[in-house]
Formats: sequence, structure tokens, C-alpha cells
Amino acid sequence: MYATGEVSVEDVVVAVILQAIEAHEKTNCLTEPLFESAVERARELDQYHRKTGKLVGPLHGIPMSLKDQFDIAGVDTTFGYVGRAFRPASEDAPMTKVLKDLGAVIITKTNVPQTILWGETENPMWGLTTLPDRPDFTAGGSSGGEAALLSLDGSLCGWGTDIGGSIRGPSHFNGLFGLKPTSSRFSHRGVPGPHEGQEHVPSSVGPMAKRLSSLVAVTRAVLNSQAWLQDPKVVPMPWREAIYQEVLNRRLRIGLIVDDGIVEPHPPIQRAVREAAALLRKAGHEIVPWDTSEHMSFIEIQVSLVVAVDKCRHAVAAGPHTQSQDQFYRADGGEDIRREIAGAGEPMLPHVEALVASSKPISVYDYWQLNRAKVRAQQTYNTKWDDAGVDVLLSPVAGHAALPHGCFRYTGYTKVWNFLDYTALSFPWTIVSKHLDSHDVNATSTTDRDRSAGLSNPFNAYNRRLYDLASMDGLPVGVQIIGRRFDEEKVLAVAEILQSEADKSTQKATGR
Amino acid sequence: MYATGEVSVEDVVVAVILQAIEAHEKTNCLTEPLFESAVERARELDQYHRKTGKLVGPLHGIPMSLKDQFDIAGVDTTFGYVGRAFRPASEDAPMTKVLKDLGAVIITKTNVPQTILWGETENPMWGLTTLPDRPDFTAGGSSGGEAALLSLDGSLCGWGTDIGGSIRGPSHFNGLFGLKPTSSRFSHRGVPGPHEGQEHVPSSVGPMAKRLSSLVAVTRAVLNSQAWLQDPKVVPMPWREAIYQEVLNRRLRIGLIVDDGIVEPHPPIQRAVREAAALLRKAGHEIVPWDTSEHMSFIEIQVSLVVAVDKCRHAVAAGPHTQSQDQFYRADGGEDIRREIAGAGEPMLPHVEALVASSKPISVYDYWQLNRAKVRAQQTYNTKWDDAGVDVLLSPVAGHAALPHGCFRYTGYTKVWNFLDYTALSFPWTIVSKHLDSHDVNATSTTDRDRSAGLSNPFNAYNRRLYDLASMDGLPVGVQIIGRRFDEEKVLAVAEILQSEADKSTQKATGR
Repeated sequence: MYATGEVSVEDVVVAVILQAIEAHEKTNCLTEPLFESAVERARELDQYHRKTGKLVGPLHGIPMSLKDQFDIAGVDTTFGYVGRAFRPASEDAPMTKVLKDLGAVIITKTNVPQTILWGETENPMWGLTTLPDRPDFTAGGSSGGEAALLSLDGSLCGWGTDIGGSIRGPSHFNGLFGLKPTSSRFSHRGVPGPHEGQEHVPSSVGPMAKRLSSLVAVTRAVLNSQAWLQDPKVVPMPWREAIYQEVLNRRLRIGLIVDDGIVEPHPPIQRAVREAAALLRKAGHEIVPWDTSEHMSFIEIQVSLVVAVDKCRHAVAAGPHTQSQDQFYRADGGEDIRREIAGAGEPMLPHVEALVASSKPISVYDYWQLNRAKVRAQQTYNTKWDDAGVDVLLSPVAGHAALPHGCFRYTGYTKVWNFLDYTALSFPWTIVSKHLDSHDVNATSTTDRDRSAGLSNPFNAYNRRLYDLASMDGLPVGVQIIGRRFDEEKVLAVAEILQSEADKSTQKATGR
Repeated sequence: MYATGEVSVEDVVVAVILQAIEAHEKTNCLTEPLFESAVERARELDQYHRKTGKLVGPLHGIPMSLKDQFDIAGVDTTFGYVGRAFRPASEDAPMTKVLKDLGAVIITKTNVPQTILWGETENPMWGLTTLPDRPDFTAGGSSGGEAALLSLDGSLCGWGTDIGGSIRGPSHFNGLFGLKPTSSRFSHRGVPGPHEGQEHVPSSVGPMAKRLSSLVAVTRAVLNSQAWLQDPKVVPMPWREAIYQEVLNRRLRIGLIVDDGIVEPHPPIQRAVREAAALLRKAGHEIVPWDTSEHMSFIEIQVSLVVAVDKCRHAVAAGPHTQSQDQFYRADGGEDIRREIAGAGEPMLPHVEALVASSKPISVYDYWQLNRAKVRAQQTYNTKWDDAGVDVLLSPVAGHAALPHGCFRYTGYTKVWNFLDYTALSFPWTIVSKHLDSHDVNATSTTDRDRSAGLSNPFNAYNRRLYDLASMDGLPVGVQIIGRRFDEEKVLAVAEILQSEADKSTQKATGR
């Protein structure tokens, strides 16, 4: 419609900005709005089109938002630290620049948690971001501002980062598509974050959107923009259309994870992956069970599970279970966070304080041994995948839908894929239903884990206590599609297949 | 000739093995010979060809050798440590397997220095490897066994590793081609080395050979073998023939380094790069000077320069100049090396002892800060390269040709490219000539560095003292061609261009 002139960029950008303002009033999702420069840019694009009859690029006039971690020249990049305010970035990050060059209009930056490293979104500077229409619930984190905004149509595509689930978790809580690519596929330059210099588990930059077609379009456009010229860490690998097309047109073999053997997902989460698997099976694809017995060892090397504290009644009840297991991220003894906090003398949020307090520095030698264990685990998992001959995995994104503030703990369903640096996509599948989902968590399944260990697994016992069907009714539920390293085209193609089957199924049910 | 049956693999393999034995008698270049299994494999290949009329793959019957760092099932992988003897590898490394699958015949493993991290080749188990026909001179290191063997035609292609120059240095000393690719282009799985778990400056696996055509052929064949399926660290990027062909057929812009501003190369080294540059300029390519002012800061972050000790008269004279500057590799306080040495209670070679003794552990936080400095430096260099618009750089491989044992120190000409994880190739260009090269090092050039700082730079003063035209006459001298990350096809194409110009020039001179 931009190409034919039916609609002006200015009209669209202004309309989306109005929705962003409304979203912010509801959820406190924005940090620094860029409305004026966005409207100015929109007018420039309209003028360009009037003059030349052309669009500047494949993302001409698309309103986009960036997590408050992406550098935009002249704008602060705080990632939730007060000490980073009033220190505007001197230049655009390559991702910012590429998006602008492709025609996108950046309308705002969005909220994140203090330290970034948290599955909910709150910090002393910008405050707490809530789930749309559910003020007592978290929008998730760390890309929680993005997710709340996109969910309320205050942006068409957002960009987040994901080092343990920070794109996929909020996407799952908010009914969005979110792609965590392999770490060196999109540029992370000029996207500062916590623990810079740690290279053991790299963070990934990736897109989030309400529609899958948006995700495919922006991924294709950005990968074809040669962003690697601006960032030597990016692998020079353009969008591979042939792989995408090949996967779209053949029978797949898909490994199914319903339960990772550590945390048994709530009934609606299990229902979602089972429904998606059933639909794919019906369409002729092969579904095989997937063994997750190594995941606990990955989590022992990597997962950040911090001491429970404040607001959540479940967390208080959980007490001693909320132990700390993150060896990797706290290898510096909490020094990185302490220094950032000292920048402005701001208060630490209770979970951040707990994280720092429980951090003990390890030696570089021991740190290297963790890396060795990581590489061995990556190799073993790769061989297992080959032996199984699967294309992708289908899995929950988390053990639960969105939670009340302060209750988020277990990241095992997402973080293992960061540990392996695999591609993973969050796909909005269904909503929690008081009609379809059981009230009784214990009745849903009796796994070997439970038979042998009862409730001795603290993560699992805690997760059971979180289930409250009455308050969760209607919350979005996603499923996760996982591929190996550099499988972005493949994972997006599988998502298209699933979307297409879901659309057919809906048409059949509604008789359209 | 194999395809037509003119020659049998067995005949070739046996002939090369006989040369390998002779090479070993001269230079002590082998560790564990695999002659029996090689002849057996040769017979299998001949039988396969007789039966089917086909070759098993593009490397059918090519005798190859592997540095004693590559796992071969049933064979020890010692990398120079006594404590690793009699512990045979349980399976082939993916690289070993890929080479065998492509038809190569592995005839032997070759010698390396204790710890690998050294530019000469000696260890308490296998002893000292010498330069062919020059027993007082080192063959270089750490892939020194490979280089001596290949130089004496005891193998057609060898595989080494390079974390600071370990492929390029020995290639330069021995008149060979050697390619150090970007680190994740060839598989390093099953190729254990020192400091495993350190991921800050990754080691690269790469080929060495007497002929450029061999290097191109094996690189192409291995990259097209989908080795990434066996190793998740390998980037799934096949050989890109289009890039190779494109570079072969256009005018290039080449940055020229004659002197890195730290160590002024000896006269024959400078002559080599100047001659190569002149030939390329004559062929229509553009040569521009290249500024190396950041290299000292890279070296400060990374280079291992250890305390001088034993055999070299120059080193003794160098005294206090032989300081230690490696922060990165000794971040563990020497723990990794101490534990390896303790495996068998073997003696440490003097330079290893000095390395360990001078190692002080740093904190993981400080280690992360070194990584940040590294990434910033990588980004700055990338931007500088873009701004200059060069295709590749042409540079010395070292400040000198081969040296007497115990004299090797400065790795700045090779190590900066590991620091940047760039592609770099060693190209055998000329030999030291008492007729063409000046006796007087000080007379060769008067750089700003010398004018302002005299001989205050200890690396440079030491290097001057090493020059001895009488004893060095006739030693091989290489030049280095450098591209950025994943520029393997480009760098090999530029080498082809240089080779072709050199061939034409020789034909002209000799009237052929």
C-alpha cells in the first residue's frame, strides 16, 4: 500500500505511536520515546516516495521498536542501570543502522530489567512493566517492554536480545512470535549488555512480532543486508532461500519434548505442544519423542537461578528450594553488576542483590574447565541429534504461562538452547482455558521423575505451586521450535508449516 | 594418474614413506609413524579402483601427515607432553575422518614443542626437530615436524594448527605454503591443545604443502565435505567458488606492510615483500601502504613473549629485553601447563618453565575486560579496513628467516591475525641471498621509530642482533597474504594471482 501510495507512512507511524502511548499507559513498557524523529523520518520517506515513486527498501515505513539495549545515536542506552542515563550513544549500532537503511522507522525504545539478566521487567529508573490487561502479572523479561508493546500493537516489529530466553519468554507470555537466532547471525555490536567480555554463552539479537510473516520478512531483509561488513563477529551468511524452500516442501522428522524431566509444565503448556504435534503428525510429518536427560547437567553449568525474595507468595513458600546454581555468569564474583550499580548508587532490586551476594569468583583455570565441559556437551548433543535424524524439536517455552510479578524462576526450557547456541523460535499457539486445562497439576502425568523422586526436585515442586487456573485463564501459551546452529531458515520454514496447518484447522472448525 | 591406473597408490605411498624416513633421519620430524596402516589403506584404495574403476574421493591416495595433535583412533595424541603418551585416542577427529573419507592416506604424525605454544619444535619425549640440511637451525614451530617433513617431500600435504603463527612460521622457514583459516572454518574437534576451554583467541586448523595447488585442492575438498555435521563449532559454509573466481579476475587493492613499526625485518624479508608487491603492481594491481600503529596494543593484549634462556647466543645477549607480555594466555597463572607437566613429572623446557614462573592468575572479571578490549580492537580494525577499501594485505611472515635453535622470540607478524581471527597465508617467495641482501641491518632503512627511539625497542634491537647473512644465505623466505574473517577463498585466489605473476616473471627471466 505504501508502493501504490494508498497509505502514507506518516499516517501509519502516527497511528502506531498513538497505540504505543496507550500501551505505555497500560503497561509501562517504554523507556525513551522517539516519536518526533519517527514522524520526521516518516515524512522523509513519504517525500522520497512521492518524488521517485520508489520505496527506500524492503522495510520502508515499518514502525519498529528497540529494547533499551540497542545504541541509537544521541539516545541513552541504559539496559536498566541508572548509572547509564544521560550518556547518549555516539553512533547507531550496526543493527539500528541496517534497519534504518532498509526503511524501518524506529519509534521508541522499550523497558528491560536491571542487569538484563532476569525473566521479568523492572528497574529503579523506569519501573515495572506489566502484562497487558493483567497488572498483577509480569510481561516477562528481559525483552518485556518490547513484548507488552507489540502485544498492544504499539509497534509492528521489535528487536530484543536473548541469552537465556529473553526474547522467547516474553513472546510466549504475550502471544507473539520471537526468534532467537544463532549468536553470530545478527550483529550484537553497539548492543551493550551485562558481563561484556564473557564469551562463553553469547547473547543473540533477534526479532519479535505478532505475525510470523513479519518475522520472516525482517530476518530475510536484514540477513541480505551484509551487516557483517560492519561487525566482524557476524558470519557472512546471507539468507539462504534454498534451505527455506526445501524445508517448506518435504516431510519432517520432529523430536517432541512435552516435559524436560526437571520441571513438569502446567497443563495448558503440555496441551499446546501436544496439539501442535498432533496437527503436524496429521499433516504427514513424523513425530518422535525426544530425550532431555542431559538438560539438568547443562543447567548445572549454566542456568542462573537466584534466591527468591519479594513479591510472589509462591516464592516465599518455596523457601530453601530457591538455590543458586549459576557458575558461569557469576564467575566474576558479581563484579560486573557491582560496578554498574555503583555508577549511580542506585538500589539493587532484591533478586539482583541476591545474585551478587551469592556470587563467588572462580579462577580463570576453573572457568576454562567450565568451557571445556560446555564444548563437550555441545558435541555430544550434536551427535545425538545426528543419530536421531530429526529436523527440529518441538518443546514448551516455559513450564508455565505468564506469572504474577516476582514469581519467575526456571529458565531451563529456553536456556539450554543458548547453551548450545541453537536457533529457537517462540510460536504463539493457544490460550490457557479453564475448560480444556486440568485444575489438578499432580493429575496431569506421572513421570518417572515423580515416581522415583516425589517432589524432591525443588524446581518442579515450586512450579506446581505456581499453577492457578482461575487467574491464568485466557493467558497466551506458546510452543518452541528448535533447530541447530545456523538453522534460522529451517526453523522459520517449520513455523510456516505449523502456521499453515493451524490456519487450515481453524478454517475447518469454523467452516470458512 | 590414479584414475587411469598409470600409477598405483601403493607405489606412491611407499615412495613417500621412504622419503619420510629419510626426512626423519635428517630432522627428527616424526612422532608416531603409521606406515603399516598407510600401506594397507593404499592397497585397499588400489583394489577399490581396480574393482570399480573409480576413485573414492577427490583426495584418493594422497599421502598426508598430521601434527601430533590430531586424534587418530588407536594412536596417541601427545602434543609434546610425556603424560599424554600411552593414552591412545578412542576415535578419529572429524578432520581425520573427513580426510580419510575423501581418500587421503595418513602416513605419520609429526613433532611439536612441549605445550605447543612455542615457535620452535622440541620436547622431552620426541626431542628436537631441525631445519632440513641445517642441523643448527630450528624448523620453527609449533607445526615444525610437519614443515620439515613436507620440505623433504616426506608427505604431500600436512595439517597443522595455528594460534600465533604455528602454521605460517614453519612454512616460511621451510619454503612451504601454509594456510591459517578463520578459526571455525575447519573442525578443531578431536584436536586437543593447550589451554583448552580458553575461547578468547581460538586456534585454527589448516593445511600446509609445497604447492599452492595442493592447498587449494584440499581446502576446497574439505570445505565441501560438510564437516560441520560432525562439529557444531564449524560454520556451515561450503567452499564458495564464486568468490574465488571473482577475485581471480579483477584488479585488486592491496595494503602493503614492509615493517610493522615494532620489529624491522631483516633485509631479505623486506626484499621479499617489496618484490612481490612490485610484481603485483606491474600486473595492474594497486598497492597502498598499510598502517600498523595498533599492532603493539594487540600484542600487549595477547602476545606471548617469554623469558630468554638457553641455547642462543643472541638470546643471552638480549638479557633484560626478553620480558613477558602475555596477559591472555597466562590468565590461569600457568595452571594448565603445570597440570599437563605433572602428568608424567617430565622436565619443563627452560622457556616453558619461564612461562609458567612468570604467569600470574588474573580474575575472571579482569579476563572479561581483556575480551572487551579485544572485541573493540577487532571492530576498530574492521572499520579501518573498510575505510581503506583494500582486498588483502601483503606482509612479512616474521622479522627473519629460520633461526638457530633457541633464538625465536617475536611473533607479532603472525599473531595479530590470530587476534583478529583473520585468514592468513604463508607464501614461499625467495631465499636469503648474500648477493642481494645487505650485510648491514642498520643501513637498510631508517624508520621514524628508529629515528625517535633509537634501539630502545627491545624486540627490534634483539632482532637486529639475530641477522647473520653468512649463515642465513640460502634459507627460504616467505611473504604473508592476509584477508579478513572467512576470506579463505579470496586469500587463496590472491595467492594464485601472485603465483601466476611469479611464474610469468621466471619464464621471462629464463627465456622459457
